[in-house]
Amino acid sequence: AEAPCRDAVTREVCRGVGRLLRALSFAVINELPLPNGRRADVVGLSPSGDIWIVEVKSCLEDLRVDAKWPEYREFSDALFFAVAPDFPQAVLPGDTGLILADRYGAEIVRQAPETRLAAARRKAMTLRFARAAAFTLQGLVDPSLENS
Amino acid sequence: AEAPCRDAVTREVCRGVGRLLRALSFAVINELPLPNGRRADVVGLSPSGDIWIVEVKSCLEDLRVDAKWPEYREFSDALFFAVAPDFPQAVLPGDTGLILADRYGAEIVRQAPETRLAAARRKAMTLRFARAAAFTLQGLVDPSLENS
Repeated sequence: AEAPCRDAVTREVCRGVGRLLRALSFAVINELPLPNGRRADVVGLSPSGDIWIVEVKSCLEDLRVDAKWPEYREFSDALFFAVAPDFPQAVLPGDTGLILADRYGAEIVRQAPETRLAAARRKAMTLRFARAAAFTLQGLVDPSLENS
Repeated sequence: AEAPCRDAVTREVCRGVGRLLRALSFAVINELPLPNGRRADVVGLSPSGDIWIVEVKSCLEDLRVDAKWPEYREFSDALFFAVAPDFPQAVLPGDTGLILADRYGAEIVRQAPETRLAAARRKAMTLRFARAAAFTLQGLVDPSLENS
Protein backbone atom coordinates (compact mmCIF):
# COMPACT_ATOMS: atom_id res chain seq x y z
CA ALA A 1 0.00 0.00 0.00
CA GLU A 2 2.91 2.29 0.67
CA ALA A 3 4.78 1.67 -2.55
CA PRO A 4 2.86 3.93 -4.98
CA CYS A 5 3.11 6.88 -2.63
CA ARG A 6 6.78 6.21 -2.07
CA ASP A 7 7.37 6.01 -5.81
CA ALA A 8 5.61 9.31 -6.38
CA VAL A 9 7.69 11.07 -3.73
CA THR A 10 10.87 9.58 -5.14
CA ARG A 11 9.96 10.72 -8.64
CA GLU A 12 9.23 14.26 -7.53
CA VAL A 13 12.36 14.57 -5.42
CA CYS A 14 14.44 13.17 -8.32
CA ARG A 15 12.98 15.78 -10.65
CA GLY A 16 13.72 18.65 -8.28
CA VAL A 17 17.25 17.38 -7.70
CA GLY A 18 17.77 17.10 -11.45
CA ARG A 19 16.78 20.73 -11.89
CA LEU A 20 19.08 21.87 -9.09
CA LEU A 21 22.07 19.99 -10.48
CA ARG A 22 21.37 21.25 -13.97
CA ALA A 23 21.28 24.81 -12.64
CA LEU A 24 24.72 24.08 -11.14
CA SER A 25 25.93 23.07 -14.65
CA PHE A 26 25.87 19.35 -13.94
CA ALA A 27 24.62 16.85 -16.50
CA VAL A 28 22.30 14.41 -14.73
CA ILE A 29 21.00 10.89 -15.13
CA ASN A 30 18.81 8.73 -12.92
CA GLU A 31 19.10 5.10 -11.87
CA LEU A 32 22.69 4.44 -12.85
CA PRO A 33 23.72 0.83 -12.14
CA LEU A 34 27.04 0.64 -10.27
CA PRO A 35 29.71 -2.07 -10.44
CA ASN A 36 28.64 -3.32 -6.99
CA GLY A 37 25.14 -4.15 -8.21
CA ARG A 38 23.49 -1.12 -6.61
CA ARG A 39 21.75 1.69 -8.44
CA ALA A 40 22.46 5.35 -7.82
CA ASP A 41 19.20 7.36 -7.81
CA VAL A 42 20.70 10.55 -9.29
CA VAL A 43 24.20 11.02 -10.67
CA GLY A 44 25.57 14.41 -11.69
CA LEU A 45 28.63 15.04 -13.87
CA SER A 46 30.18 18.51 -13.67
CA PRO A 47 31.89 20.36 -16.54
CA SER A 48 35.26 19.36 -15.09
CA GLY A 49 34.26 15.72 -14.58
CA ASP A 50 33.33 15.71 -10.88
CA ILE A 51 30.77 13.06 -9.99
CA TRP A 52 28.05 13.61 -7.41
CA ILE A 53 25.68 10.89 -6.26
CA VAL A 54 22.34 11.84 -4.71
CA GLU A 55 20.39 9.13 -2.90
CA VAL A 56 16.69 9.87 -2.60
CA LYS A 57 14.85 8.77 0.54
CA SER A 58 11.08 8.98 0.31
CA CYS A 59 10.30 7.93 3.89
CA LEU A 60 11.84 6.58 7.09
CA GLU A 61 11.31 3.00 6.01
CA ASP A 62 13.20 3.70 2.80
CA LEU A 63 16.19 4.83 4.84
CA ARG A 64 15.92 2.00 7.38
CA VAL A 65 16.08 -0.80 4.80
CA ASP A 66 19.16 0.69 3.13
CA ALA A 67 22.04 -0.22 5.44
CA LYS A 68 24.54 -0.16 2.60
CA TRP A 69 24.25 3.48 1.53
CA PRO A 70 27.89 4.23 2.51
CA GLU A 71 28.93 2.16 -0.50
CA TYR A 72 27.85 5.00 -2.77
CA ARG A 73 30.69 7.05 -1.39
CA GLU A 74 33.20 4.86 -3.19
CA PHE A 75 31.77 5.93 -6.54
CA SER A 76 31.41 9.68 -6.10
CA ASP A 77 33.34 12.83 -5.23
CA ALA A 78 30.39 13.93 -3.11
CA LEU A 79 27.47 11.97 -1.66
CA PHE A 80 24.12 13.58 -0.77
CA PHE A 81 20.81 12.42 0.58
CA ALA A 82 17.79 14.15 -0.90
CA VAL A 83 14.42 14.20 0.84
CA ALA A 84 11.12 16.06 0.67
CA PRO A 85 10.81 19.04 3.04
CA ASP A 86 8.59 17.09 5.49
CA PHE A 87 11.08 14.24 5.97
CA PRO A 88 12.44 14.03 9.56
CA GLN A 89 15.96 15.22 8.78
CA ALA A 90 17.36 14.45 12.22
CA VAL A 91 17.48 10.73 11.46
CA LEU A 92 19.73 11.22 8.44
CA PRO A 93 23.48 10.59 8.78
CA GLY A 94 25.41 13.81 9.38
CA ASP A 95 28.48 13.02 7.31
CA THR A 96 26.81 13.30 3.91
CA GLY A 97 25.42 16.26 2.04
CA LEU A 98 21.71 17.05 2.38
CA ILE A 99 19.31 18.34 -0.27
CA LEU A 100 15.67 19.29 0.24
CA ALA A 101 13.57 18.91 -2.88
CA ASP A 102 10.08 18.98 -4.33
CA ARG A 103 9.02 18.48 -7.91
CA TYR A 104 9.86 22.06 -8.88
CA GLY A 105 13.34 22.43 -7.49
CA ALA A 106 15.75 21.73 -4.68
CA GLU A 107 18.21 23.33 -2.33
CA ILE A 108 21.51 22.19 -0.84
CA VAL A 109 21.04 22.43 2.93
CA ARG A 110 24.39 20.88 3.81
CA GLN A 111 27.35 20.51 1.45
CA ALA A 112 28.81 16.99 1.14
CA PRO A 113 32.31 16.22 2.40
CA GLU A 114 34.59 15.73 -0.59
CA THR A 115 35.81 12.18 -1.19
CA ARG A 116 37.88 12.49 -4.36
CA LEU A 117 37.76 9.55 -6.74
CA ALA A 118 40.99 7.98 -7.94
CA ALA A 119 41.65 8.52 -11.65
CA ALA A 120 40.85 4.96 -12.74
CA ARG A 121 37.53 4.91 -10.84
CA ARG A 122 36.58 8.32 -12.24
CA LYS A 123 37.34 7.15 -15.75
CA ALA A 124 35.23 4.02 -15.30
CA MET A 125 32.34 5.99 -13.77
CA THR A 126 32.39 8.59 -16.55
CA LEU A 127 32.31 5.86 -19.17
CA ARG A 128 29.47 4.12 -17.32
CA PHE A 129 27.51 7.38 -17.11
CA ALA A 130 28.11 8.15 -20.80
CA ARG A 131 27.01 4.77 -22.06
CA ALA A 132 23.94 4.58 -19.80
CA ALA A 133 22.75 8.02 -20.92
CA ALA A 134 23.30 7.25 -24.60
CA PHE A 135 21.58 3.84 -24.39
CA THR A 136 18.53 5.33 -22.71
CA LEU A 137 18.42 8.15 -25.24
CA GLN A 138 18.78 5.84 -28.23
CA GLY A 139 15.96 3.67 -26.86
CA LEU A 140 13.69 6.73 -26.79
CA VAL A 141 14.68 7.97 -30.25
CA ASP A 142 14.56 4.56 -31.97
CA PRO A 143 12.23 2.40 -29.82
CA SER A 144 12.18 -0.53 -32.25
CA LEU A 145 15.83 -1.01 -31.42
CA GLU A 146 14.89 -2.59 -28.11
CA ASN A 147 13.43 -5.57 -29.93
CA SER A 148 15.91 -5.85 -32.77
CA ALA B 1 15.14 22.39 -53.06
CA GLU B 2 17.75 19.78 -52.30
CA ALA B 3 17.86 20.24 -48.55
CA PRO B 4 14.75 18.29 -47.48
CA CYS B 5 15.85 15.26 -49.48
CA ARG B 6 19.37 15.54 -48.13
CA ASP B 7 18.07 15.78 -44.56
CA ALA B 8 15.95 12.67 -45.02
CA VAL B 9 18.88 10.65 -46.35
CA THR B 10 21.09 11.85 -43.51
CA ARG B 11 18.47 10.89 -40.94
CA GLU B 12 18.05 7.42 -42.37
CA VAL B 13 21.76 6.75 -42.68
CA CYS B 14 22.26 7.99 -39.11
CA ARG B 15 19.60 5.59 -37.86
CA GLY B 16 21.12 2.61 -39.66
CA VAL B 17 24.59 3.50 -38.41
CA GLY B 18 23.22 3.81 -34.86
CA ARG B 19 21.79 0.32 -35.07
CA LEU B 20 25.04 -1.12 -36.41
CA LEU B 21 27.13 0.49 -33.68
CA ARG B 22 24.69 -0.62 -31.01
CA ALA B 23 24.92 -4.18 -32.32
CA LEU B 24 28.70 -3.85 -31.93
CA SER B 25 28.11 -2.88 -28.24
CA PHE B 26 28.78 0.82 -28.76
CA ALA B 27 26.68 3.48 -27.08
CA VAL B 28 25.78 6.09 -29.69
CA ILE B 29 24.82 9.74 -29.88
CA ASN B 30 24.22 12.07 -32.81
CA GLU B 31 25.34 15.63 -33.47
CA LEU B 32 28.04 15.94 -30.85
CA PRO B 33 29.65 19.40 -30.84
CA LEU B 34 33.46 19.22 -30.84
CA PRO B 35 35.95 21.66 -29.29
CA ASN B 36 36.85 22.92 -32.78
CA GLY B 37 33.30 24.12 -33.41
CA ARG B 38 32.35 21.25 -35.71
CA ARG B 39 29.65 18.68 -35.05
CA ALA B 40 30.23 14.94 -35.37
CA ASP B 41 27.21 13.27 -37.03
CA VAL B 42 27.47 9.99 -35.11
CA VAL B 43 29.78 9.18 -32.20
CA GLY B 44 30.12 5.70 -30.74
CA LEU B 45 31.61 4.82 -27.36
CA SER B 46 32.71 1.22 -26.86
CA PRO B 47 32.59 -0.74 -23.58
CA SER B 48 36.33 -0.13 -23.15
CA GLY B 49 36.09 3.58 -23.99
CA ASP B 50 37.10 3.59 -27.67
CA ILE B 51 35.58 6.48 -29.62
CA TRP B 52 34.44 6.15 -33.21
CA ILE B 53 33.22 9.07 -35.30
CA VAL B 54 31.02 8.43 -38.32
CA GLU B 55 30.47 11.27 -40.78
CA VAL B 56 27.35 10.91 -42.88
CA LYS B 57 27.41 12.11 -46.47
CA SER B 58 24.01 12.30 -48.13
CA CYS B 59 25.19 13.34 -51.59
CA LEU B 60 28.23 14.47 -53.59
CA GLU B 61 27.59 18.11 -52.79
CA ASP B 62 27.58 17.28 -49.08
CA LEU B 63 31.08 15.82 -49.44
CA ARG B 64 32.36 18.60 -51.70
CA VAL B 65 31.51 21.42 -49.28
CA ASP B 66 33.21 19.66 -46.37
CA ALA B 67 36.92 20.23 -46.94
CA LYS B 68 37.68 19.96 -43.25
CA TRP B 69 36.54 16.41 -42.55
CA PRO B 70 40.11 15.25 -41.67
CA GLU B 71 39.75 17.29 -38.46
CA TYR B 72 37.40 14.62 -37.09
CA ARG B 73 40.32 12.26 -36.98
CA GLU B 74 41.84 14.21 -34.09
CA PHE B 75 38.85 13.39 -31.93
CA SER B 76 38.39 9.67 -32.59
CA ASP B 77 40.16 6.33 -32.50
CA ALA B 78 38.56 5.49 -35.82
CA LEU B 79 36.92 7.69 -38.46
CA PHE B 80 34.32 6.43 -40.93
CA PHE B 81 32.23 7.89 -43.69
CA ALA B 82 28.71 6.51 -43.94
CA VAL B 83 26.64 6.75 -47.11
CA ALA B 84 23.53 5.26 -48.64
CA PRO B 85 24.13 2.29 -50.94
CA ASP B 86 23.59 4.38 -54.11
CA PHE B 87 26.26 6.95 -53.22
CA PRO B 88 29.22 6.94 -55.66
CA GLN B 89 31.77 5.44 -53.30
CA ALA B 90 34.75 5.98 -55.60
CA VAL B 91 34.85 9.69 -54.75
CA LEU B 92 35.28 9.04 -51.01
CA PRO B 93 38.74 9.26 -49.46
CA GLY B 94 40.39 5.85 -49.15
CA ASP B 95 42.10 6.35 -45.82
CA THR B 96 38.96 6.33 -43.67
CA GLY B 97 36.56 3.56 -42.83
CA LEU B 98 33.43 3.15 -44.96
CA ILE B 99 29.92 2.17 -43.87
CA LEU B 100 26.94 1.59 -46.15
CA ALA B 101 23.63 2.24 -44.44
CA ASP B 102 19.90 2.56 -44.88
CA ARG B 103 17.24 3.23 -42.26
CA TYR B 104 17.15 -0.39 -41.15
CA GLY B 105 20.80 -1.11 -40.65
CA ALA B 106 24.33 -0.74 -41.90
CA GLU B 107 27.47 -2.62 -42.77
CA ILE B 108 31.16 -1.86 -42.42
CA VAL B 109 32.58 -2.13 -45.93
CA ARG B 110 36.06 -0.96 -45.01
CA GLN B 111 37.50 -0.83 -41.50
CA ALA B 112 38.97 2.51 -40.40
CA PRO B 113 42.69 2.88 -39.75
CA GLU B 114 43.25 3.18 -36.03
CA THR B 115 44.37 6.60 -34.80
CA ARG B 116 44.58 6.17 -31.01
CA LEU B 117 43.58 9.15 -28.92
CA ALA B 118 45.95 10.43 -26.24
CA ALA B 119 44.64 9.91 -22.69
CA ALA B 120 43.76 13.57 -22.04
CA ARG B 121 41.84 13.91 -25.30
CA ARG B 122 39.99 10.65 -24.68
CA LYS B 123 39.04 11.82 -21.21
CA ALA B 124 37.75 15.13 -22.56
CA MET B 125 35.79 13.44 -25.35
CA THR B 126 34.22 10.90 -22.98
CA LEU B 127 33.12 13.70 -20.66
CA ARG B 128 31.75 15.67 -23.62
CA PHE B 129 29.84 12.62 -24.86
CA ALA B 130 28.47 11.88 -21.38
CA ARG B 131 27.23 15.40 -20.74
CA ALA B 132 25.70 15.83 -24.20
CA ALA B 133 23.79 12.55 -23.91
CA ALA B 134 22.53 13.37 -20.41
CA PHE B 135 21.48 16.92 -21.35
CA THR B 136 19.52 15.69 -24.35
CA LEU B 137 17.91 12.96 -22.27
CA GLN B 138 16.98 15.30 -19.45
CA GLY B 139 15.43 17.70 -21.97
CA LEU B 140 13.19 14.89 -23.23
CA VAL B 141 12.22 13.64 -19.76
CA ASP B 142 11.61 17.09 -18.24
CA PRO B 143 10.86 19.40 -21.21
CA SER B 144 9.93 22.39 -19.07
CA LEU B 145 13.56 22.50 -18.00
CA GLU B 146 14.54 24.05 -21.31
CA ASN B 147 12.70 27.23 -20.37
CA SER B 148 13.47 27.34 -16.69
